[in-house]
Amino acid sequence: MSKYCFGVDLGGTTVKMGLFTTDGTVVDKWEIPTRKKNNGEQILPDIAASVSAKIAETKIDRTDIAGVGIGVPGPVDQAGVIYKAANLGWGVFNVAETLSSLCGGLTVKAGNDANVAALGEMWKGGGQGHRDLVAVTLGTGVGGGIIINGEILTGATGAGGEIGHIHVEDQETDTCGCGNRGCLEQYASATGIVRLAGRRLAQDTKDSVLRSGEITAKTVFDAVKAGDELAMEIAEQFGEYLGKALASIACVVNPEIIVIGGGVSKAGPVLLEYVRKYYVPYAFHGSRNAEFALATLGNDAGIYGAAKLVMED
Amino acid sequence: MSKYCFGVDLGGTTVKMGLFTTDGTVVDKWEIPTRKKNNGEQILPDIAASVSAKIAETKIDRTDIAGVGIGVPGPVDQAGVIYKAANLGWGVFNVAETLSSLCGGLTVKAGNDANVAALGEMWKGGGQGHRDLVAVTLGTGVGGGIIINGEILTGATGAGGEIGHIHVEDQETDTCGCGNRGCLEQYASATGIVRLAGRRLAQDTKDSVLRSGEITAKTVFDAVKAGDELAMEIAEQFGEYLGKALASIACVVNPEIIVIGGGVSKAGPVLLEYVRKYYVPYAFHGSRNAEFALATLGNDAGIYGAAKLVMED
Repeated sequence: MSKYCFGVDLGGTTVKMGLFTTDGTVVDKWEIPTRKKNNGEQILPDIAASVSAKIAETKIDRTDIAGVGIGVPGPVDQAGVIYKAANLGWGVFNVAETLSSLCGGLTVKAGNDANVAALGEMWKGGGQGHRDLVAVTLGTGVGGGIIINGEILTGATGAGGEIGHIHVEDQETDTCGCGNRGCLEQYASATGIVRLAGRRLAQDTKDSVLRSGEITAKTVFDAVKAGDELAMEIAEQFGEYLGKALASIACVVNPEIIVIGGGVSKAGPVLLEYVRKYYVPYAFHGSRNAEFALATLGNDAGIYGAAKLVMED
Repeated sequence: MSKYCFGVDLGGTTVKMGLFTTDGTVVDKWEIPTRKKNNGEQILPDIAASVSAKIAETKIDRTDIAGVGIGVPGPVDQAGVIYKAANLGWGVFNVAETLSSLCGGLTVKAGNDANVAALGEMWKGGGQGHRDLVAVTLGTGVGGGIIINGEILTGATGAGGEIGHIHVEDQETDTCGCGNRGCLEQYASATGIVRLAGRRLAQDTKDSVLRSGEITAKTVFDAVKAGDELAMEIAEQFGEYLGKALASIACVVNPEIIVIGGGVSKAGPVLLEYVRKYYVPYAFHGSRNAEFALATLGNDAGIYGAAKLVMED
């Protein structure tokens, strides 16, 4: 039985890396820069070199290493093929095979970063102890990852769990980054909440602390906690969009638990309350009792999930 | 390697049964009545007796039988436990274990009937050759089954694929069978289409062949094919509800193919056209190219899928 595994979370600026024991303890955690020049051709060699250096430094026997898991910012299929990662300059190629040969034949598995983070939250985060899980990351955008029976739902072309692009609003006039209009991401992301706030503030002159200073998802939820009525109206809108969308998702995958993370989720339990308020009445009865939890691993969810990718179940 | 398997589709009135070779050829196909008295206590013994009789009749060696798969009208979890099947009188118990001991220890696997039918369509029907599939059954209600990497998405409590209860309409005043309002089933089922037609006809006095005679999903789509404008408006509404819902589902599971079956699908390719017309613009680009196909196994999808449940992959 292997004793160690590496988890790699490849981002547009830095690569987060972790060495884990197979029971999920972090032995070491470090970062290297993401060198994107020449269409990102140095990225995987840099990661392989860093893995090698860590093996040398820790004097771990290579036969004790289960493998290297990697989360990548783009759609990755079951075989480890990425279909373009625009912000790395990458085209279509097999990430898992390429990194494996750079790592001298170590087992490598690759997944989409949001999906891999969901796996991390299942393994050691807010979804621990569950095997059917929906993870939502509310950051600049809305990311998602679906775990079914302990495994990532990858989908036909690696686009499984792209729940930020569920259509939730017919009346939207702005275009989403994906090219459609009325995507969940346009209302439930950090930028989406700011948009909702801007629209609400423009509606009338109702008093609110949000009328002075910069508006962010954080200031909106801080105002909610301070009892600001207008901010609470915005939180209701946010909760309705996200809660209804999660009820639809639950009709499809019937999760045990829904884990909400990302920067917006730092608002804490009050955020879950606004979401559950709309989830429950719109959910199918078979999924109505799904638990809600906040993500707990923060920026480390990616390395945990990546490490889990290469572990025996 | 086993040579045969049984597929059982347990319905409220009759039990459909099939004996298959493991390559998917039907050796024999028959039905027995569903005896529901005393909370359905005779149903599984009747099925076991019928399996035994068929083994005796065909002189198949029991060691050549991979097992018995069964689709059941209610939520069934991964372990084979059913959580109530109201129209059989059944409570909570392990269907797979119970039937296995009644069948002298043959391997038995159980699934929800709609999910099992989806597996059948993947194996030998409209979704043949695919492993990531969404199946929709448009009958009295709207049933669904999701197949991920060749396996049924069961979900935490057996309510995976319950796509008929996705909320699609905020303005609905009628209550769905599930207790919610505005479920997909209220618009895209046979009865849903009749409701849409009734509402459209009541709107004005526009001429239509639908103003005389009984209105059914069939008469609506027959009128569409005959160029009836009002019927085409109804088909647009149907297509918009179902196409948009499928676009949301595809954001979650990223299928290769969407297979549409059930009585309503007898309308044929024209039905797929109305659905795709709304699917494509609302789909996330990663799932936009999913194929659409009509189911081909009709009422036999259940016995095919049930047989597939007990087959090695």
